[in-house]
Amino acid sequence: MSAATVEAKKTLRDGAFGHATALSCRECGHQIELGPHYACPECFGPLEIAYDFPEVTKAEIEAGPRNIWRYKALLPVPSDIEQSPNMEPGFTRLLKANNLGRELGIDNLWVKDDSTNPTNSFKDRVVACALSAARELDAKVFACPSTGNLANAVAAAGARAGIKTVVFIPSNLEQPKQVNSAIYTENLIAVEGNYDDVNKLASEIAGEEDGWAFVNVNVRPYYAEGSKTLGYEIAEQLGWRLPDQIVIPVASGSQLTKVDKAFQELIKLGLVEDKPYRVFGAQAEGCSPVSAAFKAGVDAIRPVKPDTIAKSLAIGNPADGIYVLDVCNRTGGAVEDVTDDQVRDAIVLLARTEGVFTETAGGTTVGVLKKLVETGQLDTSLETVVINTGHGLKTLDAISDRVGARATIAPSYDAFVAAKII
Amino acid sequence: MSAATVEAKKTLRDGAFGHATALSCRECGHQIELGPHYACPECFGPLEIAYDFPEVTKAEIEAGPRNIWRYKALLPVPSDIEQSPNMEPGFTRLLKANNLGRELGIDNLWVKDDSTNPTNSFKDRVVACALSAARELDAKVFACPSTGNLANAVAAAGARAGIKTVVFIPSNLEQPKQVNSAIYTENLIAVEGNYDDVNKLASEIAGEEDGWAFVNVNVRPYYAEGSKTLGYEIAEQLGWRLPDQIVIPVASGSQLTKVDKAFQELIKLGLVEDKPYRVFGAQAEGCSPVSAAFKAGVDAIRPVKPDTIAKSLAIGNPADGIYVLDVCNRTGGAVEDVTDDQVRDAIVLLARTEGVFTETAGGTTVGVLKKLVETGQLDTSLETVVINTGHGLKTLDAISDRVGARATIAPSYDAFVAAKII
Ligand SMILES: Cc1ncc(COP(=O)(O)O)c(C=O)c1O
Ligand SMILES: Cc1ncc(COP(=O)(O)O)c(C=O)c1O
Ligand SMILES: [Zn+2]
Ligand SMILES: [Zn+2]
Repeated sequence: MSAATVEAKKTLRDGAFGHATALSCRECGHQIELGPHYACPECFGPLEIAYDFPEVTKAEIEAGPRNIWRYKALLPVPSDIEQSPNMEPGFTRLLKANNLGRELGIDNLWVKDDSTNPTNSFKDRVVACALSAARELDAKVFACPSTGNLANAVAAAGARAGIKTVVFIPSNLEQPKQVNSAIYTENLIAVEGNYDDVNKLASEIAGEEDGWAFVNVNVRPYYAEGSKTLGYEIAEQLGWRLPDQIVIPVASGSQLTKVDKAFQELIKLGLVEDKPYRVFGAQAEGCSPVSAAFKAGVDAIRPVKPDTIAKSLAIGNPADGIYVLDVCNRTGGAVEDVTDDQVRDAIVLLARTEGVFTETAGGTTVGVLKKLVETGQLDTSLETVVINTGHGLKTLDAISDRVGARATIAPSYDAFVAAKII
Repeated sequence: MSAATVEAKKTLRDGAFGHATALSCRECGHQIELGPHYACPECFGPLEIAYDFPEVTKAEIEAGPRNIWRYKALLPVPSDIEQSPNMEPGFTRLLKANNLGRELGIDNLWVKDDSTNPTNSFKDRVVACALSAARELDAKVFACPSTGNLANAVAAAGARAGIKTVVFIPSNLEQPKQVNSAIYTENLIAVEGNYDDVNKLASEIAGEEDGWAFVNVNVRPYYAEGSKTLGYEIAEQLGWRLPDQIVIPVASGSQLTKVDKAFQELIKLGLVEDKPYRVFGAQAEGCSPVSAAFKAGVDAIRPVKPDTIAKSLAIGNPADGIYVLDVCNRTGGAVEDVTDDQVRDAIVLLARTEGVFTETAGGTTVGVLKKLVETGQLDTSLETVVINTGHGLKTLDAISDRVGARATIAPSYDAFVAAKII
């Protein structure tokens, strides 16, 4: 577990990780120097980036590029990060969702639409930070185990950066997600097993091979910070203000915890006013270990064997599950889950109300939003943000039997009239 | 042809079309008042928007929203356009493409990546302008004949705006593009025929029915202006400078002519320096009426029956084909075409070099770029922009037999080693 599997560079260049100062254990607080480490040498707890932030002003951020690098001072990346070839992800639309709000009975609703990122999911954010770390650590191979979207993002970013990529996926993954990786890399490897099997294999390879940067394994501390940019953007796009409630999908649980971390940092930096907010996690019933733990009121996660159409969220043994429980409990939120049918309904609902086509992960999140209203767990009078993390074109099969052409007609006005379309 | 098929409102509100002053005939120069017209009452030539632009400064534009409405002063839209629900398209990435440039032998190459628009093609731009016109003209139905992408954009924008949508497509269209329309609208109508048949049907319906705004038929003058924003953005993102050469796909030819119009406007407004630039058009060999005319040195287009995998470009009788010839001849550019195999090669090339997954239209454009270099028609020492107008997830079938998993392995380190991946 603790093997330093990206060969440690003799010397890191100055400012290789920006204002990051150390890797800090989330469990025992022990700190070690920045490098290719991800587990605490004392207690094997997960490591997280610690910073000594400079003063950062809204004006500085607003003058930055129209992508995640506008927040580079708050990320573990060098100050010249824009100069290195990268996908330039982020700064996606925050859409006022009046139609969906009306439908669900929520007064003030926003959709943060991360499906328009370069490879059409929020994963471009985390991968951009992992790529920077891989570069600074002199990694030879840029790799990941993935439920699909991560593989897309790693393969694309690696191609553009000119670094060798190898991406591992469960062999039963949706075809669009397979093609959307194989188009960028020669090295798409299908593994006979579910994501948790693929993840275990990646850890083994990371432990045995030198020079491999598995973005979500051995450079995970750097990778994970990328999700903070979702939180920063939402606050900035609301006019430097935190929402009252936010609903976030949960696979490993990393994104949810990092959005919360971002909100906390913005408060500490004085960029937004301190105020209470509630964080809600969304899972699919067929893979809901975190939701099950939340509902049972326990603080440990019991791994499950996933069985859901929300394959991008199908992590049965979520690395950050317990931290999701912490955040949702601390903020007065909740973790909920919905059935596959509710996921499909929510995909159509979001498309028909707001013109946003989400994948099963977003169907899960919007489905949970609806359920939270119906069960009275969400306050419909408060300002609420729901995150759409991926694109519907990647999970077409989930809804292709639900929607289709209304009629097929001959190319004549008479045929049009006969079809009584309007 | 000349029927005013969106019922003319008794009175248009003040500033309904921004600084637009009239509809002007592209053939005879005759001007008529703004309204639901698209053909000249004198000569049946196509109508185009005429403006009386105010002074517009770079600072004003740069302070605007991060979407096409930053250029609203130059579009036929009201000054409060951001307040109406819309897709907020545009301001997509302009990527420095050093890897692709090296591969093709071009010193200074950029990719304007419009595949990350809300519905993953440049069509969100034109539809946003058409939606504004439909709203100001009180249309009851928002409609289009489409080769695929336009239907996606109309269906999504209509859903978000809360206006009834009906979209018509050739019945043999790629399945992802069908689902990506049907997800937003109940009224996807498949027509047994090719695009030119569908287009003809739309004109018939527009002539017979009241209150229908066919975005690319009877509100085409307003719609077409949306493509100018591609030109504005490229200039702004280059630091308020025009490129030396630009390669643009051609279906109806509207986009190409409007990018040129945008460059001319920026020069006239003093926002960029006047300088020569060359415009190149890209078609697929299986539907290359404009390229054929260019090569033959004639100034009329002979319609063809399309047969190509680049279905989004498969317009055999292009409305603006002759104006494409004008622009390419005037600027010292050219129109070229490539085979379906070259289209496929170019899709893979762009993905492997820059991490951008384009659809067959973009494969056509990048393929033509390559051919222009090989045939010496493009100056490789000059700054060049190539536009990627659509997303590869929409035309998966075109390349799904070319790329795939390199190996399928058991979930064990031994199986990984045995597969000799690296
Ligand atoms: C579309 C999408 N949304 C959300 C997630 C959840 O991410 P996390 O593992 O950070 O909880 C994933 C993870 O793969 C994903 O692909
Ligand atoms: C992806 C894509 N690129 C380019 C075009 C060409 O547009 P135009 O008709 O303006 O030439 C289209 C038209 O449908 C398209 O879908
Ligand atoms: Zn520890
Ligand atoms: Zn005329």
